[in-house]
Amino acid sequence: MGTKVNFDDMLDSFADHWSPKLAGRLNDYEIKLVKVQGEFVWHTHEDTDEVFIVLSGELTIQLRDGDVVLGPHEMFTVPRGVEHCPKAEEEVSALLIEPRGVVNTGDAGGELTATVESLID
Amino acid sequence: MGTKVNFDDMLDSFADHWSPKLAGRLNDYEIKLVKVQGEFVWHTHEDTDEVFIVLSGELTIQLRDGDVVLGPHEMFTVPRGVEHCPKAEEEVSALLIEPRGVVNTGDAGGELTATVESLID
Repeated sequence: MGTKVNFDDMLDSFADHWSPKLAGRLNDYEIKLVKVQGEFVWHTHEDTDEVFIVLSGELTIQLRDGDVVLGPHEMFTVPRGVEHCPKAEEEVSALLIEPRGVVNTGDAGGELTATVESLID
Repeated sequence: MGTKVNFDDMLDSFADHWSPKLAGRLNDYEIKLVKVQGEFVWHTHEDTDEVFIVLSGELTIQLRDGDVVLGPHEMFTVPRGVEHCPKAEEEVSALLIEPRGVVNTGDAGGELTATVESLID
């Protein structure tokens, strides 16, 4: 049946940045928790939109035509095919929602590419 | 390109209960905001899971084999085909995530069936 998850408890359980963790599922979609600080890499997901929901801190999603700045309880959907690069001066906790199997670095690859660890059964 | 949305601003813009509002999209999925108080109807979504994320208040999701009680920043996925009935003594604000077109009352129908208004363009 599944159990409820508590985002704050889950966030207390890891400290690494730019490595989304599986927090829940919805059909063939995944809800992930991530902590970020610093700047990521410019990348694109050609096949899917990607939702960011900030839980704490201030996240800047750099787009080629301007920045989107998200505070707590703010959400932005990066449309499929749109190049983006998240950054955060101070640590940010956020939710990511996207189809199962999406790679964090999209088309860019590289050393920041992360395997998704699961925080649930 | 879309714009960011602020959940708290959106929640200030409506007061009705049990009537989810469209707050964002993700491929063919929708992220909705809802305020609830009192008890809903027992119903099932035969074709899809449904994610609840509580933003404020305490939401009880009644299931036939027990209750799941969610506080702020807690999430539960009701699996497809599982009968459920949300209730809340005090007002709750929550996010719902599910495929486009899901009807709030599922198979039950009735007077609480709501048309989804959009809070975005």
